[in-house]
Amino acid sequence: MEHKAEIISVGTELLLGNIVNTDAADVAAVLSELGINTYYHTVVGDNPERLQAAVDIAKSRADIIITTGGLGPTCDDLTKQTLAAAFGKELVFHPEEEEKIRAYFDKIGRGMTDNNLRQAELPEGCTILENTCGTAPGCAFEADGCHVVMLPGPPRELRAMLRGAAMPYLRKLSGAQLYSKNIMIFGMGESAVEDKLRELMNSLENPTLAPYAKTGEVRLRVTAKAQSEAEAEAMMSPVIEKVYEAVGEYIYGINVPSLEAAVFALLKERGLTFSCAESCTGGLIAKRMTDVPGASAVFRGGVVSYASEVKADVLGVPAEMLAEHGAVSEPVARAMAEGARRLMKADIAVSTTGVAGPDRDERGNEVGTVYVALAAEGVTICKKLSCGNDRDRVRTVAAHNAFDMVRRHLR
Amino acid sequence: MEHKAEIISVGTELLLGNIVNTDAADVAAVLSELGINTYYHTVVGDNPERLQAAVDIAKSRADIIITTGGLGPTCDDLTKQTLAAAFGKELVFHPEEEEKIRAYFDKIGRGMTDNNLRQAELPEGCTILENTCGTAPGCAFEADGCHVVMLPGPPRELRAMLRGAAMPYLRKLSGAQLYSKNIMIFGMGESAVEDKLRELMNSLENPTLAPYAKTGEVRLRVTAKAQSEAEAEAMMSPVIEKVYEAVGEYIYGINVPSLEAAVFALLKERGLTFSCAESCTGGLIAKRMTDVPGASAVFRGGVVSYASEVKADVLGVPAEMLAEHGAVSEPVARAMAEGARRLMKADIAVSTTGVAGPDRDERGNEVGTVYVALAAEGVTICKKLSCGNDRDRVRTVAAHNAFDMVRRHLR
Repeated sequence: MEHKAEIISVGTELLLGNIVNTDAADVAAVLSELGINTYYHTVVGDNPERLQAAVDIAKSRADIIITTGGLGPTCDDLTKQTLAAAFGKELVFHPEEEEKIRAYFDKIGRGMTDNNLRQAELPEGCTILENTCGTAPGCAFEADGCHVVMLPGPPRELRAMLRGAAMPYLRKLSGAQLYSKNIMIFGMGESAVEDKLRELMNSLENPTLAPYAKTGEVRLRVTAKAQSEAEAEAMMSPVIEKVYEAVGEYIYGINVPSLEAAVFALLKERGLTFSCAESCTGGLIAKRMTDVPGASAVFRGGVVSYASEVKADVLGVPAEMLAEHGAVSEPVARAMAEGARRLMKADIAVSTTGVAGPDRDERGNEVGTVYVALAAEGVTICKKLSCGNDRDRVRTVAAHNAFDMVRRHLR
Repeated sequence: MEHKAEIISVGTELLLGNIVNTDAADVAAVLSELGINTYYHTVVGDNPERLQAAVDIAKSRADIIITTGGLGPTCDDLTKQTLAAAFGKELVFHPEEEEKIRAYFDKIGRGMTDNNLRQAELPEGCTILENTCGTAPGCAFEADGCHVVMLPGPPRELRAMLRGAAMPYLRKLSGAQLYSKNIMIFGMGESAVEDKLRELMNSLENPTLAPYAKTGEVRLRVTAKAQSEAEAEAMMSPVIEKVYEAVGEYIYGINVPSLEAAVFALLKERGLTFSCAESCTGGLIAKRMTDVPGASAVFRGGVVSYASEVKADVLGVPAEMLAEHGAVSEPVARAMAEGARRLMKADIAVSTTGVAGPDRDERGNEVGTVYVALAAEGVTICKKLSCGNDRDRVRTVAAHNAFDMVRRHLR
């Protein structure tokens, strides 16, 4: 049976734009992975009448309703009460959930206030979804031909419960066995990828192949409907092979969370260490590399050399070179990468120097002009980029390119 | 008249969770600033029937409908057609918009394909909202007692058009003259702030005072309904004064975008330079400081000393100290800050060393243990933190604390 899901996110802070709705995106991604169609997301405030109205609409057009938020201990948290009432269910107190909530407060060494016990009240006959990162349990039940799944609002709690408890529950509902893989691409725009692969994409029915774009990157998702994971694998691999034939040099991995994670894995596999010297990216490369858990296995450290004097004093870029070519230049980018490699005793170092904006530099280099260099044993390479005119984008694209340079060097 | 607004975001990539809906948050924040009530956000894919259905529902419960996305040149972009049809309007070709689109492509040095001309078709009699960052113009019209405003999907284009063109249009609709200020607080939880200010908040009617929380921070918004900005100022200042009396030491600014922006302004005002030595934050402090446009006026640079050897070799932390106390210790944090200050020739330097996780360090320090230090002329101070057990949170909270230490030192 083809299900139709709707996500209802509850929270006045979402409604007023104080926070961004990452929860809906996380839930939607899981539904998409499971092959469950999602047609609408709705955001509504902490208001029982309007939440009730949103649930009524959702019931009329979906048979799976997933709520996020409003499970907490305060009087604003009304999701359970409202959804239970909408489906004619009573809330029942669960003493075993009380125990878990008390244990959580003991563990973090804080006293529990009584309002927290409201979290142990759950709709009668529901499946309890465990919260491994907080106190509010989630729940799921079926009523009026509709499946209802309630998840907590704090993103960390939601993510853990979504993957840990909700996904297995939802997988049972999804009749089709869908398996998918993401082919991660950097260095080619979405339309260029589509141009290259249009024929292949159009010719496929099962598995399917579809592109998704994000800043400077493209993801190609292969999805197979099959009786088992092994069968799905067998169906997907020839497609993945064809994608490699067409755009292989731009692929940085399959099911890899990020370009930096791919670079980390490559470095670790080769037993190589990494360093960076950053001017316009201002620490973003180091930050992204250390976002990867376990980064210390490959990352020695880096220098953010914002002032020219730091480029000279710390990284050893010759003062004459800075005077002659300016900080935003190929020779300086090269000297920075070589300096970081030497200073940090790393096998490979990258550098960035450029104009992030808002203004041109004193030598008239345009906003978005960035030199990215890589230094390794016996070789230094450099690339000049035009990264557009938005400060955030310039920095993001420059960091992307620095990581991609490492990937290409190690390939 | 009290308006009711609804935001409809159009895009299959949003619906499938490939991207997060920052557009809705941005629009909601502006509506909230203008005092226009928003009761629902809806997300719908690039599907004209379902968009039509969402518009019908929105018409039944709102009199301002703001759409984001679906204004581009591809055949997926159906927002204008669908909304125009829903309100019985024709699309009309605007030759002057064609000129702008051609000029945009000339400027970025790319050839224009003919499908881009679809963007010059707009609902008859609409107000055109200029796109300063891209090619798709927005538009606004009134029909069937409803105001419709259509904005582009790419976040950068949306933000520019929202503040530049849509906000003035919406301000005219909002009868009430609302003015608000955000009091930015760090170092106190939301409930502690509420406890301190409950009486004041409850006693106020105009202006009002309300708290909003985000990771490690609290924002208090003062909102006055008044005939002029000057009158609003006069109404708000005694409230702001009372908030300062109650929690002044935790306030880092009013209407300041971030803690790092507040620190940047303080440093610039005093003519002081800044540097950092980062271990567990791995570049995040430098990255956040250089997120601030113009950071080069105060920021000299920083060292990310992930490996112990880099702490010793580059920052001059004594090897014996590292051996005796371990990298995650107060003496090392102090020596790192002093080393960065010396190396970068900065007036003030901060440092972080701690355990971001996922695992304890080899000396058994728990995940979340972080030492933050500050070195200035003749003084070094250090603070030990417990930042929880989530890697991202540990790093964010540690960086917050480092910036707050600078703020408190300069106060």
